[in-house]
Amino acid sequence: MEKNVLVIHGGGPTAVLNASLYGVIQSAKESGEISHVYGAIGGSEAILKERFLDLMQFPEETLKRLLTTPGTAIGSSRYALSEEDYARMPEIFAKWKIKYVLPTGGNGTMDTCGKIRRACEGTDIRVVGIPKTIDNDIAVTDHTPGYGSSARYLAETVAEIGADVKSLPIHVCIVEAMGRNAGWITAASALAREKKGDAPHLIYLPERPFREEEFLEDVKRLYEELGGVVVAASEGLKKENGEPIVPPIFRSGRSVYYGDVGAYLAELVIRKLGIKARSEKPGICGRASIPLQSAVDREEAVLAGRTALESALGGQTGVMVSFVREASEDGSYRMHPGTVPIEEVMMYERKVPESYINERGNDVTEEFVSWCKPLADVHHREFIDFQEYYWERKGKRE
Amino acid sequence: MEKNVLVIHGGGPTAVLNASLYGVIQSAKESGEISHVYGAIGGSEAILKERFLDLMQFPEETLKRLLTTPGTAIGSSRYALSEEDYARMPEIFAKWKIKYVLPTGGNGTMDTCGKIRRACEGTDIRVVGIPKTIDNDIAVTDHTPGYGSSARYLAETVAEIGADVKSLPIHVCIVEAMGRNAGWITAASALAREKKGDAPHLIYLPERPFREEEFLEDVKRLYEELGGVVVAASEGLKKENGEPIVPPIFRSGRSVYYGDVGAYLAELVIRKLGIKARSEKPGICGRASIPLQSAVDREEAVLAGRTALESALGGQTGVMVSFVREASEDGSYRMHPGTVPIEEVMMYERKVPESYINERGNDVTEEFVSWCKPLADVHHREFIDFQEYYWERKGKRE
Repeated sequence: MEKNVLVIHGGGPTAVLNASLYGVIQSAKESGEISHVYGAIGGSEAILKERFLDLMQFPEETLKRLLTTPGTAIGSSRYALSEEDYARMPEIFAKWKIKYVLPTGGNGTMDTCGKIRRACEGTDIRVVGIPKTIDNDIAVTDHTPGYGSSARYLAETVAEIGADVKSLPIHVCIVEAMGRNAGWITAASALAREKKGDAPHLIYLPERPFREEEFLEDVKRLYEELGGVVVAASEGLKKENGEPIVPPIFRSGRSVYYGDVGAYLAELVIRKLGIKARSEKPGICGRASIPLQSAVDREEAVLAGRTALESALGGQTGVMVSFVREASEDGSYRMHPGTVPIEEVMMYERKVPESYINERGNDVTEEFVSWCKPLADVHHREFIDFQEYYWERKGKRE
Repeated sequence: MEKNVLVIHGGGPTAVLNASLYGVIQSAKESGEISHVYGAIGGSEAILKERFLDLMQFPEETLKRLLTTPGTAIGSSRYALSEEDYARMPEIFAKWKIKYVLPTGGNGTMDTCGKIRRACEGTDIRVVGIPKTIDNDIAVTDHTPGYGSSARYLAETVAEIGADVKSLPIHVCIVEAMGRNAGWITAASALAREKKGDAPHLIYLPERPFREEEFLEDVKRLYEELGGVVVAASEGLKKENGEPIVPPIFRSGRSVYYGDVGAYLAELVIRKLGIKARSEKPGICGRASIPLQSAVDREEAVLAGRTALESALGGQTGVMVSFVREASEDGSYRMHPGTVPIEEVMMYERKVPESYINERGNDVTEEFVSWCKPLADVHHREFIDFQEYYWERKGKRE
């Protein structure tokens, strides 16, 4: 009897979302049990409109390019499904002989995943979620595919910005990082450092209340010491009272538009300290960069796709693929995939824990760096700095 | 008799500024005539403070890393030299046996170059400028080292953003590009395109007055047609009356701080059209990226350094290295370096010519693309788009 797979992408993409899709297709081919792997064209609403494209029809050389294609090759959406929508699904799946449904996404998509599973109660349809988010805010997994690449992007970009700012050290540069509620990406900027004094010099996460006075004190001190200062700041920084430091500039329906934290902080430095400042906001460049994809992240994204289908073929349903980090005696990185009940995941946002943030709340700890390092797979490029060489021999910078 | 070289870096760096320095050192070694190549540590003021570091002391494997180090390895400054400063220079050069002075920079540095030359009138000291700018706004040369890499960065980044926006096509994405008075970098975003419909969908340069009504009309039309719209906008867009579209937010001494054009345009789209919008501002990431360095640009930057010293050794002074593009019958790119009198260069800003901008002022012409293509050396990455495949077979997008 014909058995098919359906993959649905939800929410914003990552640099390795297509790699998970590739993993599903590879696993389907190898299993010998699957006739078609359908991609839902344009996210969850495509299920209702039966916009299904068979991906097994494409030659391997085409499919392989999924590994280095940003965005999502099958399309995504933020469509909000209704109870009625869910109720229609089992019939549609039956019509297309879809036995394995693999929603891929973040917290919102895992909620959808749970609801599809409930709608399919009593059928032999199996629903397994594939985690995907640059933000790394999904619970009950060591980390999520997509995070490692956004971490590598920010770390290597901040290292390059560090070299740039150091060469003309007359200003403060604020680099705004994505992640409105969780500071995982911002924290990864710490991986830019190779030695003392390297950028970033300050790191601010949304997990801690942002205190302007302390920020200005820290910037002033570092500017006097170094000349050029590089600050990594989360787009979602909040005040003590929980309000964003930059008030929403516009609301429209369910959408809220915030001003840019980087630009706000740069202006603060100029006005309050009289020091030159500018801000950079690479934004979605950081989740779309193929040259700065983490190879570890890409391989793990493929593995997540494979594991999802294998788990479903093995009889599991109502679960999400998770990554379990193994304790290793030599400190090397080892991970194996598992599955967790979807109820444990749904709609719960995982924040950066206290032990990963320093006391003053202007940096991360070594514990975070050790945790993040293998995922981001940062390539340090050994920049040359004759200025530093000169001043080290002189003993003291003028 | 001992003869030495002095290289001075001025202004903001590029992705290949250190490559020109490498070219000077290589040429010095090969000439057999030079004892030391000094780097001025920290820009033009380093001349007065005699902060000179001999770069020929370093092994080749260290020097080679200059090719892939962003920023400037010897440091730069924006120090404004006085008449008195210039007057002191000949004596300092004599003391250090510096016969060849090679200031590397943009328009401001070429002005400095001319003034050093005048100060050295009547001596055997020779002064040759090495052009450097991401902005490509130096006159009397086909293009300048540094531009090709910033062009490649923007083009490949916009291609990746295009794939990202296309996969969840519910918003307008404004990418702000550097270049306040000249739109060369912004224009290079056009090289992201491989086929009709590819990002960027609109391109706005500071050479043309920006008309908000037309912009909103164009965005609305494209949003209805495509869903996701990607706009490349120069940070220096101006109104009909010549004022910046975003008024300065702060003035302090000689410095003026502008608000972000990208954020301003995104807000305009949200408020006036009710369409979701966001902005990305990679900023200095685009002049510091080593993975997106243009190989052509890097090689030409080395060549510029070599040519500068060779010209000085050959007896020239008061000139800047220039690039002359050769007419070729088969359309292939050929260039040879030359020199131009510094007076022809000084303080003149080269803008994007009218023939490179389309009539409506919302795109560039094919003539520009042909001119820019060999410099940026863009690697098209063959992204996979199953959405597009699906809708092409369906005939019409829903």
